[in-house]
Amino acid sequence: MIIAEKARPAPDWQVSRWFNSSKALQVGDFAGKVIVLEAFQMLCPGCIYYGLPMAQKITSHFKPEDVAVIGLHTVFEHHHAMGPEALEVFLKEYRITFPVGVDEKGDDAMPRTMEAYHMQGTPSTILIDAQGRYRTRYFGTVEDMRIAADITKLIAERDANLAMNEEETFTSDAADLIGATNDQCTDEGCKLP
Amino acid sequence: MIIAEKARPAPDWQVSRWFNSSKALQVGDFAGKVIVLEAFQMLCPGCIYYGLPMAQKITSHFKPEDVAVIGLHTVFEHHHAMGPEALEVFLKEYRITFPVGVDEKGDDAMPRTMEAYHMQGTPSTILIDAQGRYRTRYFGTVEDMRIAADITKLIAERDANLAMNEEETFTSDAADLIGATNDQCTDEGCKLP
Amino acid sequence: MIIAEKARPAPDWQVSRWFNSSKALQVGDFAGKVIVLEAFQMLCPGCIYYGLPMAQKITSHFKPEDVAVIGLHTVFEHHHAMGPEALEVFLKEYRITFPVGVDEKGDDAMPRTMEAYHMQGTPSTILIDAQGRYRTRYFGTVEDMRIAADITKLIAERDANLAMNEEETFTSDAADLIGATNDQCTDEGCKLP
Amino acid sequence: MIIAEKARPAPDWQVSRWFNSSKALQVGDFAGKVIVLEAFQMLCPGCIYYGLPMAQKITSHFKPEDVAVIGLHTVFEHHHAMGPEALEVFLKEYRITFPVGVDEKGDDAMPRTMEAYHMQGTPSTILIDAQGRYRTRYFGTVEDMRIAADITKLIAERDANLAMNEEETFTSDAADLIGATNDQCTDEGCKLP
Repeated sequence: MIIAEKARPAPDWQVSRWFNSSKALQVGDFAGKVIVLEAFQMLCPGCIYYGLPMAQKITSHFKPEDVAVIGLHTVFEHHHAMGPEALEVFLKEYRITFPVGVDEKGDDAMPRTMEAYHMQGTPSTILIDAQGRYRTRYFGTVEDMRIAADITKLIAERDANLAMNEEETFTSDAADLIGATNDQCTDEGCKLP
Repeated sequence: MIIAEKARPAPDWQVSRWFNSSKALQVGDFAGKVIVLEAFQMLCPGCIYYGLPMAQKITSHFKPEDVAVIGLHTVFEHHHAMGPEALEVFLKEYRITFPVGVDEKGDDAMPRTMEAYHMQGTPSTILIDAQGRYRTRYFGTVEDMRIAADITKLIAERDANLAMNEEETFTSDAADLIGATNDQCTDEGCKLP
Repeated sequence: MIIAEKARPAPDWQVSRWFNSSKALQVGDFAGKVIVLEAFQMLCPGCIYYGLPMAQKITSHFKPEDVAVIGLHTVFEHHHAMGPEALEVFLKEYRITFPVGVDEKGDDAMPRTMEAYHMQGTPSTILIDAQGRYRTRYFGTVEDMRIAADITKLIAERDANLAMNEEETFTSDAADLIGATNDQCTDEGCKLP
Repeated sequence: MIIAEKARPAPDWQVSRWFNSSKALQVGDFAGKVIVLEAFQMLCPGCIYYGLPMAQKITSHFKPEDVAVIGLHTVFEHHHAMGPEALEVFLKEYRITFPVGVDEKGDDAMPRTMEAYHMQGTPSTILIDAQGRYRTRYFGTVEDMRIAADITKLIAERDANLAMNEEETFTSDAADLIGATNDQCTDEGCKLP
């Protein structure tokens, strides 16, 4: 995983249609949660056998306030066989209940979001941290222990950040201290010289 | 399984299009072989997880001179999502190499062959014996030991029939005896009065 | 599999103690049934993970009048850790209900029956036909389809033999014909000169 | 999991013999690491099929500086069949390389450590945090995602504690401030009144 300090904002999702969601979704909507972005194609065997069952399992092992699982239909071949109408049936038959976006087709027929994330194929699993930063990506199958450990790290990091932010909040409450010149201490605290 | 004596000819396949076969196929084309007819829908999870992998495994555990595995795409819902073009992609992605026929849609949108075989859903696995008779059908998952035992029984039955036919061949060699009237015995045998 | 005509009698079992059986058992006791002889060691991982579960599954997929599953504890190393008292606990904990014999230790500490069958290690699965003839042996894991097909072949062969024997029985009913000298035919049949 | 604040020191291990370790081990030896204590019996099917493979998998998914996997042979029945000599063979055959202690038999023939941890049977998996506190226990099978998430939480908590301890270290560097009475601030910091 990319360490938090070096991580950059996850690219926006470019989605032409959403399923299992009444509105368009974006990375920023999930601030405070770890996002598992599961990229798949409905006719990709590895997605059916491993990727999607893992994504589904994540929804039952982690709390919705901690982790958001989002599917992304990144069709990069055989577009005619995997249109939105077929996908809708697919999601119903496979009982997939998390939101799934159809990755927007670019000029070269490559899905735009897939390109933005430099994915190498399907299934790909992307982890985005609670601050919306891109942290890691897997291509192909991932062992349950591995993905669960990585998700949990990001949740713990968020919780630590929350604690740190509270300290920072303290710091910012004490911000006016910074400018204090006459006296080193106020009722709120003390400033080192 | 229906015992051989009570078994009736397997209904003809009513297929609108074949994949993995250069010509239309029919039950009668496989005389002398046991037929495993695997009915599936490309968006049926049980077919993907159990039915088709079992059918594929059968092709590698039995000899082509003994067993013919034939797929039948019996779409009875969501027809728009599982048309022949989508199926073609599906077969390629899942590397299915045995012949697959598209079950012809009847007036009520139900697949005609599926109806003729009184199938209850997908996946369904039908066994047809080497004489083209319908012998048994499974609905849902079947354990490997069970299907392998049943297929083997039908191969053995065929081999016994072959042996019996050879005896009958002997009988037919002796056919002229039947018409013998003067003498009950010839050098070749004897005829009961 | 060795073809029936070339098959030889399965070696006798040399067993020092039986579990799950009130009496000593021998190949000849199972005439008319196919015998699956499952050789294992209680501390052999491959036996625990594959061999014994397969043997147990065979007991539930085949009828007791067709197939007898017999375990053989062929300890060829670490004898002190796998004595009969430990085996007794093992069989109880793993809920193994078919008869299990302790292969008698020979002069070289090798199990005698294991040697007689030229087994290469554990797990080994031996098939003995309904006439008590050694027909085949597997070493290591065997796919369910493979073992089920082979067992079914031997059952079918037995049934064909039974049919053949009935014909022979007919012949033996007609046995007095053999001694007939004056006339070639009786009411019961005709004898070739 | 018991929250850190309410957690109590994990009971000492009462072990009569160690395998895969040149010296006796104790909870305290692993300060700074999360301990996975895997309690098993060598003739317990659930331990063989699920518990021990999971423990082994943990050793390959987590770093040795983060997690210590320790086996505990908690024989509470059939002691004669699962003595240390048999266990030694078992560990070799199953290629278990992490340290395994033999739980000391108490007066009632119950293993003392098992009793101290109030385990309900085998397999049992105990998590002890990096400060040697008992945090949680599972009985029976545990899903990979679950155990990996829980272990990772404890690693993250340790890391947060390490950070906190560094702060506390700062605090303790500033400890003499506590006793400061005359002036609220020194060069090192300021004390709130």
